[in-house]
Amino acid sequence: MKLLIINGPNLNLTGKRQPEIYGSRSFESFFEVLESGYASKGCGIQYFQSNSEGEIIDRLHKAGYGDEGFDGIVINPGAYSHYSLAIADAIAAIPLPVVEVHISNVAAREAERRKTVTGAACVAVVAGLGLFGYEAAVEWFVQSRNI
Amino acid sequence: MKLLIINGPNLNLTGKRQPEIYGSRSFESFFEVLESGYASKGCGIQYFQSNSEGEIIDRLHKAGYGDEGFDGIVINPGAYSHYSLAIADAIAAIPLPVVEVHISNVAAREAERRKTVTGAACVAVVAGLGLFGYEAAVEWFVQSRNI
Amino acid sequence: MKLLIINGPNLNLTGKRQPEIYGSRSFESFFEVLESGYASKGCGIQYFQSNSEGEIIDRLHKAGYGDEGFDGIVINPGAYSHYSLAIADAIAAIPLPVVEVHISNVAAREAERRKTVTGAACVAVVAGLGLFGYEAAVEWFVQSRNI
Amino acid sequence: MKLLIINGPNLNLTGKRQPEIYGSRSFESFFEVLESGYASKGCGIQYFQSNSEGEIIDRLHKAGYGDEGFDGIVINPGAYSHYSLAIADAIAAIPLPVVEVHISNVAAREAERRKTVTGAACVAVVAGLGLFGYEAAVEWFVQSRNI
Amino acid sequence: MKLLIINGPNLNLTGKRQPEIYGSRSFESFFEVLESGYASKGCGIQYFQSNSEGEIIDRLHKAGYGDEGFDGIVINPGAYSHYSLAIADAIAAIPLPVVEVHISNVAAREAERRKTVTGAACVAVVAGLGLFGYEAAVEWFVQSRNI
Amino acid sequence: MKLLIINGPNLNLTGKRQPEIYGSRSFESFFEVLESGYASKGCGIQYFQSNSEGEIIDRLHKAGYGDEGFDGIVINPGAYSHYSLAIADAIAAIPLPVVEVHISNVAAREAERRKTVTGAACVAVVAGLGLFGYEAAVEWFVQSRNI
Amino acid sequence: MKLLIINGPNLNLTGKRQPEIYGSRSFESFFEVLESGYASKGCGIQYFQSNSEGEIIDRLHKAGYGDEGFDGIVINPGAYSHYSLAIADAIAAIPLPVVEVHISNVAAREAERRKTVTGAACVAVVAGLGLFGYEAAVEWFVQSRNI
Amino acid sequence: MKLLIINGPNLNLTGKRQPEIYGSRSFESFFEVLESGYASKGCGIQYFQSNSEGEIIDRLHKAGYGDEGFDGIVINPGAYSHYSLAIADAIAAIPLPVVEVHISNVAAREAERRKTVTGAACVAVVAGLGLFGYEAAVEWFVQSRNI
Amino acid sequence: MKLLIINGPNLNLTGKRQPEIYGSRSFESFFEVLESGYASKGCGIQYFQSNSEGEIIDRLHKAGYGDEGFDGIVINPGAYSHYSLAIADAIAAIPLPVVEVHISNVAAREAERRKTVTGAACVAVVAGLGLFGYEAAVEWFVQSRNI
Amino acid sequence: MKLLIINGPNLNLTGKRQPEIYGSRSFESFFEVLESGYASKGCGIQYFQSNSEGEIIDRLHKAGYGDEGFDGIVINPGAYSHYSLAIADAIAAIPLPVVEVHISNVAAREAERRKTVTGAACVAVVAGLGLFGYEAAVEWFVQSRNI
Amino acid sequence: MKLLIINGPNLNLTGKRQPEIYGSRSFESFFEVLESGYASKGCGIQYFQSNSEGEIIDRLHKAGYGDEGFDGIVINPGAYSHYSLAIADAIAAIPLPVVEVHISNVAAREAERRKTVTGAACVAVVAGLGLFGYEAAVEWFVQSRNI
Amino acid sequence: MKLLIINGPNLNLTGKRQPEIYGSRSFESFFEVLESGYASKGCGIQYFQSNSEGEIIDRLHKAGYGDEGFDGIVINPGAYSHYSLAIADAIAAIPLPVVEVHISNVAAREAERRKTVTGAACVAVVAGLGLFGYEAAVEWFVQSRNI
Repeated sequence: MKLLIINGPNLNLTGKRQPEIYGSRSFESFFEVLESGYASKGCGIQYFQSNSEGEIIDRLHKAGYGDEGFDGIVINPGAYSHYSLAIADAIAAIPLPVVEVHISNVAAREAERRKTVTGAACVAVVAGLGLFGYEAAVEWFVQSRNI
Repeated sequence: MKLLIINGPNLNLTGKRQPEIYGSRSFESFFEVLESGYASKGCGIQYFQSNSEGEIIDRLHKAGYGDEGFDGIVINPGAYSHYSLAIADAIAAIPLPVVEVHISNVAAREAERRKTVTGAACVAVVAGLGLFGYEAAVEWFVQSRNI
Repeated sequence: MKLLIINGPNLNLTGKRQPEIYGSRSFESFFEVLESGYASKGCGIQYFQSNSEGEIIDRLHKAGYGDEGFDGIVINPGAYSHYSLAIADAIAAIPLPVVEVHISNVAAREAERRKTVTGAACVAVVAGLGLFGYEAAVEWFVQSRNI
Repeated sequence: MKLLIINGPNLNLTGKRQPEIYGSRSFESFFEVLESGYASKGCGIQYFQSNSEGEIIDRLHKAGYGDEGFDGIVINPGAYSHYSLAIADAIAAIPLPVVEVHISNVAAREAERRKTVTGAACVAVVAGLGLFGYEAAVEWFVQSRNI
Repeated sequence: MKLLIINGPNLNLTGKRQPEIYGSRSFESFFEVLESGYASKGCGIQYFQSNSEGEIIDRLHKAGYGDEGFDGIVINPGAYSHYSLAIADAIAAIPLPVVEVHISNVAAREAERRKTVTGAACVAVVAGLGLFGYEAAVEWFVQSRNI
Repeated sequence: MKLLIINGPNLNLTGKRQPEIYGSRSFESFFEVLESGYASKGCGIQYFQSNSEGEIIDRLHKAGYGDEGFDGIVINPGAYSHYSLAIADAIAAIPLPVVEVHISNVAAREAERRKTVTGAACVAVVAGLGLFGYEAAVEWFVQSRNI
Repeated sequence: MKLLIINGPNLNLTGKRQPEIYGSRSFESFFEVLESGYASKGCGIQYFQSNSEGEIIDRLHKAGYGDEGFDGIVINPGAYSHYSLAIADAIAAIPLPVVEVHISNVAAREAERRKTVTGAACVAVVAGLGLFGYEAAVEWFVQSRNI
Repeated sequence: MKLLIINGPNLNLTGKRQPEIYGSRSFESFFEVLESGYASKGCGIQYFQSNSEGEIIDRLHKAGYGDEGFDGIVINPGAYSHYSLAIADAIAAIPLPVVEVHISNVAAREAERRKTVTGAACVAVVAGLGLFGYEAAVEWFVQSRNI
Repeated sequence: MKLLIINGPNLNLTGKRQPEIYGSRSFESFFEVLESGYASKGCGIQYFQSNSEGEIIDRLHKAGYGDEGFDGIVINPGAYSHYSLAIADAIAAIPLPVVEVHISNVAAREAERRKTVTGAACVAVVAGLGLFGYEAAVEWFVQSRNI
Repeated sequence: MKLLIINGPNLNLTGKRQPEIYGSRSFESFFEVLESGYASKGCGIQYFQSNSEGEIIDRLHKAGYGDEGFDGIVINPGAYSHYSLAIADAIAAIPLPVVEVHISNVAAREAERRKTVTGAACVAVVAGLGLFGYEAAVEWFVQSRNI
Repeated sequence: MKLLIINGPNLNLTGKRQPEIYGSRSFESFFEVLESGYASKGCGIQYFQSNSEGEIIDRLHKAGYGDEGFDGIVINPGAYSHYSLAIADAIAAIPLPVVEVHISNVAAREAERRKTVTGAACVAVVAGLGLFGYEAAVEWFVQSRNI
Repeated sequence: MKLLIINGPNLNLTGKRQPEIYGSRSFESFFEVLESGYASKGCGIQYFQSNSEGEIIDRLHKAGYGDEGFDGIVINPGAYSHYSLAIADAIAAIPLPVVEVHISNVAAREAERRKTVTGAACVAVVAGLGLFGYEAAVEWFVQSRNI
């Protein structure tokens, strides 16, 4: 099994920015543990981050139609979740299941963050479990495959 | 560690009702596996289901202020998620973290199901991972405790 | 043929409350005539009333999945019509046709009563024909069966 | 007793158009049975259809203020239900009770069809009982008279 | 004079839950003082609490149509205020004046709490005076009677 | 000077329908007096009524581009005022000033009657002066000419 | 007969401000002609202008409950029309008929000017006839009296 | 203890205007009794009324920052409640608790009166208890002080 | 191949009315060239115009279910596009593909013209290409057939 | 060059009220420095404050049409910004450029403060720069003149 | 004549993604035919695709202000149509006519796709004609030039 | 002191595009003067422009967390202001004060331009002062530092 994690805008600052909302651990240090943990279970995970809507769409296309052999995608589109119909279209356009993750509980934030346009094109949405949300999504892919 | 799972209206029919949305496995058979798996890890899980808003509130109060010793709650308020300010108040009123779970991806359903009133009072919302969502929530409690 | 009539909140007061809107005849006296009239045509009708959303859902479940042998349900969810997604889910969850009845013409009342959330899960909605609306719904079930 | 049935736009195609929504029986063949059945009970029924808002208003006026001796009207304004304040005014302007009928359950269709402007001027609204809805409306007039 | 106080969901936790909003005094200890104070003035007060919408409706019906001899009702429907058309209907259905009380100033809270559906069926709404609001409502009944 | 008065749907019933709103005088009897009064001042007035949106548009076109020599139009589009963009387009399409008149004060009626789509294409809107509103509009044309 | 004309904010600039909307004639010069014309018909007219919401309310009260003997009021509340519930209340509070006048056709201007809050408390609304609108309103009072 | 009562627009007409809504007693006669009753309890009450938004703001400022020694304010902003952010700002700007009172139950009136902009800046809102509402507010201040 | 062009309200004035929006060429002169050009390619085109909603529905029915042998329809419903659910129903009711054309770019006009109710029932919508839009629609039918 | 600064409601309390939002310096002490600084550059500045909507309009009129010789106006309408169409009209009515200033960043406050009705009639809006915002506006006038 | 076709996000997948909506032909194969067909008529066409909002804006600027000599642009902004005010601004900023094309009929899709923000800055919008829509737009440019 | 100016989409065309809105001076020529003027005061200013949302976010991150030593940022996000929650998040994520500038008065433009999503994350918003707005923002930083 091979999965791709895509992080959207400002998530490169995780650990630095507003730690009361996003925690104080960097995504990279988390990813290192996650990746090696699942590698030992035979599940490879790659990671991509961009602040650009267009580059995220490009990456989704390449993952979906290229020959990298991904079985699924875990995406945190950051604030693009709330308005990017273009990323939502890219998710719908590729033949891979996609799970959306948010570090904070967007359902408990400002009104404009309670709607997820991209999540409507995904299989599932996980929000508020902190960085563990990525692990939950990965674990779901692994368990789904075994079924 | 001791957790309580609360299921709201119509979830007693899981496995029977609209299997294309909610799957064909009953919650009870899933719970049995979940409960015994976590028991072996020293985490006890109890289960409560009701179709009644008032009974769900009663159960939240008892869990929060009684002497059962719960460390957290996993709740799937079913359709009450979308309008029950009373359950949201009950969640906010008790000194326990609560994680909301939905079997289906409510972000991808009709407009009135895209808003979760109760989720705004929770720590996190997990939707669309099927019954695995409950496991993810439980696992998060277990891992959070270890930190 | 066997049908169940479910009445929701405040309908136990029919005949007593606001007679200029709901008429001055009690539902029970009406039901007695209806039931005996259809009994002679080989159609049994039972009656259930509750002011509780949860009990209405319970009753729908029992009628839909129990062994009472109902062929259909006539429901007047009262004010729950306008916001109870949970009852709407219960109606959608059971393998029986359901017809919604309102004594008054809700389309001619205040804005928040012009929308029926539960009616969207039903086969049909009859409003404003007074108690005759229940008879029309029953008769439709009887005639539909004959076709 | 003498009643008038008025059908609005596109209902002349009933039986031909979208049979999965409107059924495959023509209104004319249904009307023939209805009319002869009630004739034997001493209730005359006439039928009028038009695709034109203005002609429907004209017919309502004539029925209400002419010397045809109608006791009531059963109207299916089709899509005009959702926006024709002019037909609603005509219904309110005449001294006859009017019952609105829809073949399909408009409460379960697209948002703009869930509101009935004309129904707000009627005594009652029946939707989703198919062609039987017309019969229910007629029967209500007959029974109301006997009281 | 005889009055009934009805408290809705989560008000059984008053004094325990979020004391910065609802204060730290339990309702029971407040009620004891209130009840004995008014008893000496010849006004009996009874108290009922439930988290269930249906039970609140049942209690309103019993108070309105039973033989307990109440002259009025003071109700704090808690969060049901904001959406329970069913309780609003019950208030409108009984031949007794009802005054709505809220401990906190709902006009100064989140948007969805600024609207009171049940208050629209009441004689008056008192919000933000803390537990004294109940006393104000009772006193109003007493003084109104004297006029 | 030559003017055309156009009345829309249901205005043929003026004097008969809801006299508490529209008064008890027929438009014809009013028009007779108006027409003869202005004839003596050298201003000819013609009158047209239709319940049909299309016929009203046809009449506006003929008045605007035909050879009848009208100097202006007084229109009461009845309920079409509130939604007929087609009549509004017709008013905007012709090279004649148009004044809208309503017998009742639409600003004080139901929400959907407070907006006038057709009035936005007119020079002026007069509402609530009863039948005198037509006279005011005619008088304005006469005085405007003199300036 | 004795009438009062009240002009609201910015109307003291009529003739000076934006003449393409409001014309180039001052209200005073218009009023002089109007007043003397009606004086000869036995109808006295007084005039009051203020930019202050409170002073307009004061003037309405004095006219309605003082001993000046007014039979009616013609008011142009200017922009207060669109939001002053306080002036609307004052109009509703006094025992005199009030007619609202606007110089320009507010139905054809920006969205927020298409709603008249004060007009909903008046007998009638006249908009777009320029200064003649005041004359039409006065004339209506005179003719109404004769009836 | 020293309190100030501020009444806003049209409340000078209380007792005269629409007595079916506001009662038939003048505020002055009520105030006289209230003031002397509380004087004997050592609580002085002053009264101010204005129809002008600006004067109400001025009075709030003077009470809050002047040397009159007020302990609190009871305000009935009348219709300004529903839109005057300026008065709301003034209430928030002064270091005194303010309680809002309405004679009628604004929650049961037209939609635009169900929202109180000024009440959101107050400690509490009392509506529908008639003139007794002022007394309840004063009593609350007195009792709060004793605590 | 045989096509029908239907023009709705006010399009009979094309060339005369507001030429800065709709151009100065009459539709008839354009149609003559279009019709003869396509006749030579073996595609017959007929033309129908009406200002009446009902007549447009009648024409759609006749084209769809009559024996004229049309292969498709090009419709410009004019302002009816924005509210006529009845025409939208007629388009959906007939077994022929329909393409909607607007002369001006409705997406760049007032808010209420940016929504096309009828276009939602069509195969395609072409707006802003002037009279060439009709030709584009016809050409699409011709090319589609060849595929 | 001669400029007028107009401050609206509650700004007389600047320095006293909510210093965490508005700072702790009084406007008067700021103005003194500003005025003398610009006097030396040949630019005279006057200052006017009122809590009354009407007085602000009066002052705008006098500045615009009187003989004081102002070249421009800097206005902070306080909370009136968000609803006073009357002040907006006054700004539009005078032949002077007006710049709107807010001390706090209204774009970052509650929803109803994010819209500026008066700012739509101004040349520019400056918000959040504290008292420096007034200086920026004055400086813009000075520099604009030099161009 | 020289034209530029710009395709936005996900259109590089045309032919691969959701063929039931977008067809199964790749844009490249279509473009090849289009380009050579128009080359023979003396009209050169270039093609640009990007998933990035910024690159699309850059390309519009270069086409509009560079020295490539384009006479017009055909743009399909994909999902950016529905929210990119930045692309709309770029279209408005350049001195070239732009026609918007959509492959599917966006007027018949979900609510958020029925509004085109970018189309409001274009000359015309063509939607639902499949790839032929591009040809129609190109042909319109060619014919417009000949006029 | 060191500041960064960031310009968003289409601002590279300033001076060229719609000069009636944005003026005819290029930003570069303005910046040259601004930069040299402040250099002499010991304040360095750098400039960055991009049409890409992602690049703007990247630049904000680098300025906020890199080692360039900026003390503040002046940003004109162009049309991204109105919908880019991602840029708003980036502004909130960095430990630097940011002031938003718009050349035109967005409060006086179309409804969708009156809301600034990014401005809600800034310290201040300056709109309508033309290029001087940048200078005002810079000057504010300089003066703030001196305090």
